[in-house]
Amino acid sequence: MHSPSPIIKSSLIEPDGGELVNLVVPEIERASRVLEAQALPKVSLTNIDLEWAHVISEGWASPLKGFMRENEYLQSLHFNSLKTTKNGSSIVVNMSLPIVLAIDDETKERIGCSTHVGLLSPNKVLIGILRGIEIYKHNKEERIARTWGTTVDGLPYVDEAISKGGNWLIGGDLEVFEPIKYNDGLDDYRLSPQELRNEFERREADAVFAFQLRNPVHNGHALLMNDTRRSLLEMGYNNPILLLHPLGGFTKVDDVPLHVRMEQHTKVLEDGILDPKTTIVAIFPSPMHYAGPTEVQWHAKARINGGANFYIVGRDPAGMPHPTQNRDLYDPDHGKKLLSMAPGLDKLHILPFRVAAYDIVHKKMAFFDPSRAKEFEFISGTKMRSYAKNGENPPEGFMSPSGWSVLANYYQTLQTEDC
Amino acid sequence: MHSPSPIIKSSLIEPDGGELVNLVVPEIERASRVLEAQALPKVSLTNIDLEWAHVISEGWASPLKGFMRENEYLQSLHFNSLKTTKNGSSIVVNMSLPIVLAIDDETKERIGCSTHVGLLSPNKVLIGILRGIEIYKHNKEERIARTWGTTVDGLPYVDEAISKGGNWLIGGDLEVFEPIKYNDGLDDYRLSPQELRNEFERREADAVFAFQLRNPVHNGHALLMNDTRRSLLEMGYNNPILLLHPLGGFTKVDDVPLHVRMEQHTKVLEDGILDPKTTIVAIFPSPMHYAGPTEVQWHAKARINGGANFYIVGRDPAGMPHPTQNRDLYDPDHGKKLLSMAPGLDKLHILPFRVAAYDIVHKKMAFFDPSRAKEFEFISGTKMRSYAKNGENPPEGFMSPSGWSVLANYYQTLQTEDC
Repeated sequence: MHSPSPIIKSSLIEPDGGELVNLVVPEIERASRVLEAQALPKVSLTNIDLEWAHVISEGWASPLKGFMRENEYLQSLHFNSLKTTKNGSSIVVNMSLPIVLAIDDETKERIGCSTHVGLLSPNKVLIGILRGIEIYKHNKEERIARTWGTTVDGLPYVDEAISKGGNWLIGGDLEVFEPIKYNDGLDDYRLSPQELRNEFERREADAVFAFQLRNPVHNGHALLMNDTRRSLLEMGYNNPILLLHPLGGFTKVDDVPLHVRMEQHTKVLEDGILDPKTTIVAIFPSPMHYAGPTEVQWHAKARINGGANFYIVGRDPAGMPHPTQNRDLYDPDHGKKLLSMAPGLDKLHILPFRVAAYDIVHKKMAFFDPSRAKEFEFISGTKMRSYAKNGENPPEGFMSPSGWSVLANYYQTLQTEDC
Repeated sequence: MHSPSPIIKSSLIEPDGGELVNLVVPEIERASRVLEAQALPKVSLTNIDLEWAHVISEGWASPLKGFMRENEYLQSLHFNSLKTTKNGSSIVVNMSLPIVLAIDDETKERIGCSTHVGLLSPNKVLIGILRGIEIYKHNKEERIARTWGTTVDGLPYVDEAISKGGNWLIGGDLEVFEPIKYNDGLDDYRLSPQELRNEFERREADAVFAFQLRNPVHNGHALLMNDTRRSLLEMGYNNPILLLHPLGGFTKVDDVPLHVRMEQHTKVLEDGILDPKTTIVAIFPSPMHYAGPTEVQWHAKARINGGANFYIVGRDPAGMPHPTQNRDLYDPDHGKKLLSMAPGLDKLHILPFRVAAYDIVHKKMAFFDPSRAKEFEFISGTKMRSYAKNGENPPEGFMSPSGWSVLANYYQTLQTEDC
């Protein structure tokens, strides 16, 4: 049983809105709230809804206090930001993805005039209450068009979470009875923004640089992260800490699953490719939209709340191949450009990726040098997966060998299961 | 020949960015600039492009100084606003529509490495120069999805201006050699933002309330405008001036054409339905997107530059019927809601429409009274047009009789031409 962590006075970057939202009910009030919820109309959450409840309840989306009401939804959809107040003054915080809860006609009917609803997990356990609810139309086409900039078939989050969802959205103030857990052996990695901040304080970090990823770490990533640390030291920081922050929520079927990625990341640290003394590995509980330049803002904004003041951004962040055309869904430079201009992200230092590739001569991952372009090989995710599937090894120096074994084993198992 | 109007020190609302952009070349430099343009690669403008050049050159889009470069385009598309500076401080101005110039592959090829291009009007006359150009990809689907929130077939501006447009956008700083004119007998109504401001100063307006329209004025509109003036007087303003500001650029084929509307508006003022002493009728030169809640922000923002500090907003502003479904394309309340939350529009007072309808008992347009709902009739644009087409009169008191004659004659002529 967890209690909310105490708020530590911190020299770290301030959370959006000035205060980290924590919507977990204090233990002493839990029993009475559960009793209250039992008497309310119920809304059933999908796995993705539960991930969002997790995200909101821990303050990743601070100052958002629940699933969006219509005014928040419209601002997010049209402006990628929310107007709010801090100490009485008007401020703008970034909020690029609509964080909403869809319900169907039958559920809306059942809720009737109730002002609060109980929330049921996919396992039919009461996990919280949504208070002061507002129900408004879920115009799916408009939501999709404005979030993804396309309405093409085959967008993974749309297929999984929106098309199947109901015709109504329900917003309100969230409270959850307990910190949300998944019991998959990885909950200890799911540090809340407050727990991360406590850990950064404990380590006396004077700079925190976040690396969002949903892929295995190869030595090009490691080069980049180590080089960033070196730069920060040169800039005069004494103790920059890396937050290696794999996304842990919904991902598309051909992405490497979370438990494999976490095992791979662990090996990379064990092998010393990244230094455990200056690295924290934790899971970011958000589901993935694959909404490119719109989503990368969410990835960055949430890390402000998690205590990061530097954010590393690469080519085509949160992107994917176009579902029906032979090209990237997004212009690979737009994510980086938007991050540098997005409302509410001014206080985060954006660190653009330098391109790393496999240096054939020196047999290692190195920053690409255009003057000897022919001596470099770009190893894509697809190529990496094809090595693993075929039981081949990638070139020496591409990835820590024990990290590679994790991947290779996973893909070999997959193939066995396929037969 | 016009010279740019002198900037008058004004107590009116400040234009966006602090200064009204005026991109018309001073007369003394005109000859040399034309000579320069003759030697440059040329870009041909469509009618809609020319309307935008007009809009930009007069400062309706201040502080925008030309067709958007990619950074401006992306901010407009994703944030409906632009970051800029005023007196060294960072500010945000509203900018909800991408104001862009599309070129095709062949034109891009022809421009080559030139940094400036000459602009040719649809009549093949050199009208200006675009300087410091930047050419970037025109992802039409993304532009449409993010601007309209739908990619459905049948959006009038998309069909007219985007689908046919080239695969590239060209941004840069605009200058035009002379104020843009259309020689259609209506140019005198096309007052620039500076000319409007001068006129408001001359009349010693202490409040300016703008009414955007693209339809004939009926007595319900007039009631609303007169009631707004009464409210402003009650609020303590001494001389509120109404800017009756019909949109003059591209409209869809079944809208009433500009010259008919202008004639109708003139009759309404002649009949004293609106008071000429406290009303300025002028043409807003922008083309129409029919992009609902996204476009209404543009309509409001441009009127800030035109000197208005109050903006009247109705049901479903800048909306239209869904092209393929039996419903409005946009939620009719979203426009009003977004205006109240949009970045950069804080300084404009938004005045929501009260609903007017035909009061059958008192034979006049009146504010709808739900307690005697049955005594009201809603006369839609479609119904109004069907009266005019069938040679019938609308109910007494719906519209000034001489204003109605203008409409009736137009639709009768149309039918004759159809036969």
